[in-house]
Amino acid sequence: MQRTPIAEALNAQQAQARITVCGWVRTRRDSKGFSFLEINDGSCLMNIQVIIDETVPTYGIIKDVSTGASVQVTGELVESPGKGQKWEVRCTELTLFGTADPETFPLQKKRHSDEFLRTIAHLRPRTNKYGAAFRIRSEAAFAVHSFFRDRGFFHVHTPILTGSDCEGAGEMFRVTTLPVQGISKPENGNWFEDDFFGRESNLTVSGQLEAEMLTMGMGRVYTFGPTFRAENSNTPRHAAEFWMIEPEMAFADIQDDMDLGEDMTKYVVRHVMEHCAPDLNLFASFVDKELMGRLETLVREPFARITYTEAVDILLASGKDWEFPVSWGCDLQTEHERYLAEEHFGKPVIVRDYPKQIKAFYMRLNDDDKTVAAMDVLVPRIGELIGGSQREERLDVLEARIREIGQNVDDYWWYLDARRFGTVPHAGFGMGFERLLMLLTGITNIRDVIPFPRTPRNIDF
Amino acid sequence: MQRTPIAEALNAQQAQARITVCGWVRTRRDSKGFSFLEINDGSCLMNIQVIIDETVPTYGIIKDVSTGASVQVTGELVESPGKGQKWEVRCTELTLFGTADPETFPLQKKRHSDEFLRTIAHLRPRTNKYGAAFRIRSEAAFAVHSFFRDRGFFHVHTPILTGSDCEGAGEMFRVTTLPVQGISKPENGNWFEDDFFGRESNLTVSGQLEAEMLTMGMGRVYTFGPTFRAENSNTPRHAAEFWMIEPEMAFADIQDDMDLGEDMTKYVVRHVMEHCAPDLNLFASFVDKELMGRLETLVREPFARITYTEAVDILLASGKDWEFPVSWGCDLQTEHERYLAEEHFGKPVIVRDYPKQIKAFYMRLNDDDKTVAAMDVLVPRIGELIGGSQREERLDVLEARIREIGQNVDDYWWYLDARRFGTVPHAGFGMGFERLLMLLTGITNIRDVIPFPRTPRNIDF
Repeated sequence: MQRTPIAEALNAQQAQARITVCGWVRTRRDSKGFSFLEINDGSCLMNIQVIIDETVPTYGIIKDVSTGASVQVTGELVESPGKGQKWEVRCTELTLFGTADPETFPLQKKRHSDEFLRTIAHLRPRTNKYGAAFRIRSEAAFAVHSFFRDRGFFHVHTPILTGSDCEGAGEMFRVTTLPVQGISKPENGNWFEDDFFGRESNLTVSGQLEAEMLTMGMGRVYTFGPTFRAENSNTPRHAAEFWMIEPEMAFADIQDDMDLGEDMTKYVVRHVMEHCAPDLNLFASFVDKELMGRLETLVREPFARITYTEAVDILLASGKDWEFPVSWGCDLQTEHERYLAEEHFGKPVIVRDYPKQIKAFYMRLNDDDKTVAAMDVLVPRIGELIGGSQREERLDVLEARIREIGQNVDDYWWYLDARRFGTVPHAGFGMGFERLLMLLTGITNIRDVIPFPRTPRNIDF
Repeated sequence: MQRTPIAEALNAQQAQARITVCGWVRTRRDSKGFSFLEINDGSCLMNIQVIIDETVPTYGIIKDVSTGASVQVTGELVESPGKGQKWEVRCTELTLFGTADPETFPLQKKRHSDEFLRTIAHLRPRTNKYGAAFRIRSEAAFAVHSFFRDRGFFHVHTPILTGSDCEGAGEMFRVTTLPVQGISKPENGNWFEDDFFGRESNLTVSGQLEAEMLTMGMGRVYTFGPTFRAENSNTPRHAAEFWMIEPEMAFADIQDDMDLGEDMTKYVVRHVMEHCAPDLNLFASFVDKELMGRLETLVREPFARITYTEAVDILLASGKDWEFPVSWGCDLQTEHERYLAEEHFGKPVIVRDYPKQIKAFYMRLNDDDKTVAAMDVLVPRIGELIGGSQREERLDVLEARIREIGQNVDDYWWYLDARRFGTVPHAGFGMGFERLLMLLTGITNIRDVIPFPRTPRNIDF
């Protein structure tokens, strides 16, 4: 089927004697003997205006061409006398693909609440706001791939199904082919003997450990895939399924890691500002008036960089009445992270050298024996955008840490092999892709940057 | 840490007085008073040669610099007098990061079987073959994104966790937070009442149905994500977890679908031929002597295009003794698919208009009422690379098909909404990414194009 995407038609350099566009009707206005249609095909935020007069053979169907109906329009692309658009189509042929009964089609021309639109997640991509959000999502994903490829990183696919319970980043979903009714207790005590993998299997919470293995051969790699948390928390910031970006670099330390996190964040934000200006402008106009200022500061200024100890001092000196009290050794909560980025620095801040007790076993122990070479990138409105670290590359130190947290060194045999054979200094981080999208759009609920979000007791569509 | 990737050093335009490279030792040769190292850092297939003589302060450690050890080398980049390399490094400073005990490091300089290497999947990215395979995997993934973006497709993330059992493409894994021991029968009969999502939840076998919803607002979209099959089949072609690419186009018919499949396949193959020549050459030299000829034919010649009925006639006329007998109405098996592509046409072939009985309910019914507008792209060595169709956009026809297969129309409410409101002709397909990689590399076992493959009773790493 021949058609010109509306994004292309609106960017035409000259009038065209014959053009075909397809799309969904956003509005129809009737005058005596002719009608105006606003048509959108998803290729961009903007609609194209179509003028249809009664000489068009199928003009009789115009009464069924209501909001949400799908049409094909052939005609002449001419300069528009109206304001706000350069081109419009003078229709000579009109085909109606499908109607949308005004009595039952939920997306009539009025404002709908985000909550309502979540209940029709299958239809909300037809709205301006969600079309824009998902176009930005697409372009941001492409920017991630471009950034890493330009810097010599290879994209790797780490497994989603994992038999490892070493990841320790949160509650896991179990994956099974056993009946829900349960099975009788197996003689050898292995409940998973007859399960698909013959042992307990879960959905990954992070591809980091496997990405480290690939880094130790390929030098620089990143994952970009779905990760899962079976945490029963109904907050605007948490989803059971979300996408994560996890770069890992061999021959790199915590400084390289901070630089990479800052560079990548700036690159993606700049790329989206350049390539998605109209969509971004929708969010800046209707969702978050301060959005553009915040993004411009982010790409222009160097991120602040402080140690955890300095962060604690700032928080203690703030005079704020924290919900979670602050003292050296405490984990930073969202209220603390946002204060640092939003109020104290007014821009993103990288906090490094966290107490080892509150961080994962694989983070490299600093010489003070109290802190690890961890770094978090905190941004206004969101809090933690990136969490990363230099990884512990010393076999003996890593084994000691595993024992310290009460785990069995043998369970980590392959992870330790990377330190046993040709170990190197290396570092990496994880960035929640949805948090990046919330930063980019000003959307405050993670459910609204994911096409079909999964949260406790919600797996519709 | 400052270092020059070896890919960059080997492409230097001129000698450099001081350069630092890092990597893993592939081989060491000792002469009187000096040693040669071949070092690889994963940035490319090629090693860089390093010459270290006894004047280097740390020359005493050279005996520990064995295959697999990791080093940092600083020195002068000079033209190499040796064959096969333009540049080499005259070392002035040598740092040993990590040793690799020759007694226990499994990757000594000898040929290892693929079977053995699968047991050390965490180390095999350090070999030439798997490094090359995973670099090609990365570049092919990038080519997929570039292809679609250039054509106005948006990348969408469809859900991995699904409450829908409508997908019908294969056995599913169940996802749960209930105890493996089972629960007592719930009073209301819903075994999943206390499960995370409150109802049965599975891992997706396809993002198509959700991608269709996004297409109906965004025009052209594609997914690129993991999909799952809980099929207990131990073949070289099947994995429980694999990545699939699923484009979906509004305002498109089966012809557009075939064109897209052919264009995309050619684009990715051409891109990899252009960007991964040394890695591809490894496979052409050591894995499959006919690889380059096959790929060159694929990008040069138009794919053959026939109907299913024509395909059956060809198979019947072939005089072959099929394991699965052929008659109109039968599903094509790999032996048939490979015969058509490999022997009969000697190039990829697109087969369309399959009997409706052997295809999914959502494929558009042709006017003959016997066949559907389905199309499969079959390629030499692999068989089916792509399976797609024009989708049934007519509400009444689709509802009748759902009833015909004995399913409940109400279960498909949101899928049918897309036909109820502004339905349009649309089409799409699914391509198994690993099949594409097998085509690109000549690798015959799917376990060897996935970093950490998952198959029945195998979830190591």
